[in-house]
Amino acid sequence: MSILVAVRGWKPDHWIHALRAAAPERTVVLPGDAFDPASVRYALVWKPEPGYLRTLPKLEVIFSLGAGVDHLTSDPQLPDLPVVRIVDPDLTGRMTEWVVMNVLLHHRQHTHYAAAQAAGSWQPRRQWAAGAVRVGIMGLGELGTDAARALMALGFEVAGWSRTEKRLDGVAGFHGPDGLAPFLARTDILVSLLPLTAATENLIDRAVIDGLAKDGPLGGPVILNAGRGRSLVEADLLAALEDGRLKGASLDVFATEPLPPDSPLWRAPNLYITPHVAAESDPEALSRYVIGEIAAHEAGRPLGHLVDRDKGY
Amino acid sequence: MSILVAVRGWKPDHWIHALRAAAPERTVVLPGDAFDPASVRYALVWKPEPGYLRTLPKLEVIFSLGAGVDHLTSDPQLPDLPVVRIVDPDLTGRMTEWVVMNVLLHHRQHTHYAAAQAAGSWQPRRQWAAGAVRVGIMGLGELGTDAARALMALGFEVAGWSRTEKRLDGVAGFHGPDGLAPFLARTDILVSLLPLTAATENLIDRAVIDGLAKDGPLGGPVILNAGRGRSLVEADLLAALEDGRLKGASLDVFATEPLPPDSPLWRAPNLYITPHVAAESDPEALSRYVIGEIAAHEAGRPLGHLVDRDKGY
Repeated sequence: MSILVAVRGWKPDHWIHALRAAAPERTVVLPGDAFDPASVRYALVWKPEPGYLRTLPKLEVIFSLGAGVDHLTSDPQLPDLPVVRIVDPDLTGRMTEWVVMNVLLHHRQHTHYAAAQAAGSWQPRRQWAAGAVRVGIMGLGELGTDAARALMALGFEVAGWSRTEKRLDGVAGFHGPDGLAPFLARTDILVSLLPLTAATENLIDRAVIDGLAKDGPLGGPVILNAGRGRSLVEADLLAALEDGRLKGASLDVFATEPLPPDSPLWRAPNLYITPHVAAESDPEALSRYVIGEIAAHEAGRPLGHLVDRDKGY
Repeated sequence: MSILVAVRGWKPDHWIHALRAAAPERTVVLPGDAFDPASVRYALVWKPEPGYLRTLPKLEVIFSLGAGVDHLTSDPQLPDLPVVRIVDPDLTGRMTEWVVMNVLLHHRQHTHYAAAQAAGSWQPRRQWAAGAVRVGIMGLGELGTDAARALMALGFEVAGWSRTEKRLDGVAGFHGPDGLAPFLARTDILVSLLPLTAATENLIDRAVIDGLAKDGPLGGPVILNAGRGRSLVEADLLAALEDGRLKGASLDVFATEPLPPDSPLWRAPNLYITPHVAAESDPEALSRYVIGEIAAHEAGRPLGHLVDRDKGY
């Protein structure tokens, strides 16, 4: 009845420690350890070696570390088992913090004030009201819904766009390919929280950028992406920032991560970059969540946040 | 039945225009215009010439442009008339935006990420949860209450300190001189929204700074001031930022405004400066509010947000 932790790209020490603290009675193993493959019932994974999960004959549930699951669904050998996305309030709240902060950085003209401060210069500017700013959120799952709620509480005018129709109180809803153009046309600040699927890859391109509202109070549209890097065409974003079709942007995710040191994005005008930390998994909180889900599963209760393989999220 | 607009330090053109748009049937005058002093019933003022309001024999109500009224109460010749603070949702919302953004700038380690971006360097850092951060708000009037609500919605642990006891759901309450030390001792991010009174002048000094929590997740306490500049001893704040007793700060208000170009504050470490724009009055929204209050007054209804001269706010 072991729990396997299989991650690539970072050291899992903190997770091992947190899982053992949350469930001292269970055994936690790593792929390199000596253990009986048939002892593993649960796997916590991030970008596991393709095919590796197939080698565990008694595996019952796969937990994806992080809200996105494209690191799993891209594996053609992924066993046909329930995949649980880790969606806990802590992770959702972190994403909302990132979205709220970055919307405010653009809305409150932070780049101007930071430059004025660096110049030792008192340069107040007229500030428009939040109610005059139309935010549009792409992706209305747990993350998008929570971000919409927080932005509405601050007075922003919020709309959402999703693959299928979703209704949220106070949020103007748009959906599907036909809903995209009218959604963009009323949006001053576009926030993408989209998962990476065949339908979202390269979705935010020059046509989407040029479809955003041009008459808003910010002096041009702004794009935030904290979903997946490959849902946005970086060259199109960069060109639009440089020639002024976009007023600003904030990116937490990139087509290639880490973003290479020679990427021109680092120095693009009015672009805020964070290194994929918008909603970092917190080992303590999430280990407690995973252990709770395992206990529920063993008690015969249904698992939450199951991934639909066909939809890809 | 004229409305007088008397401001010093900035041009009132926008306000004149907005008031005339909000009430085309009323006459709007300026101190330099030719008008009968007895025709003025209402005055919208910001730092009016001391004694000037005394020259208007039929004045009924003084409206203060901005939430703070120290620019009026410092005039010993101020007529004994109702003084209405302009407190409308628009202004309150703007202050909450500033508080939320600046709390998040420190909480989300923006100074680190901005420096990493400038260096073209991918440097993720571990991020603590909002629930691990204790925000303490000094001043629980309209502004402090709204900021507390917004910060709690983001998951922060919020306490408040006020002159007299106030109860807000979910906010640990402290009050009076005796409540200050325990309030500071549990506070990682101190937010001052205090008015300037005899009791608050120079209140935030070295002793207050050194009384803040030292064991929080940010690596040291942080101070935000968007109340009044003279409630904080700038030299004490600067020294604490420079020797590391304070981890960071955000200031929107200063003892001398504009902040002089040679002030060392411009270049203090991890300090965000904005030029008194946290909650700028919006002429359109506030003119509608003032005209609504005048109509209510003329209909015999009580005025809202009256200033208590003895308390000074």
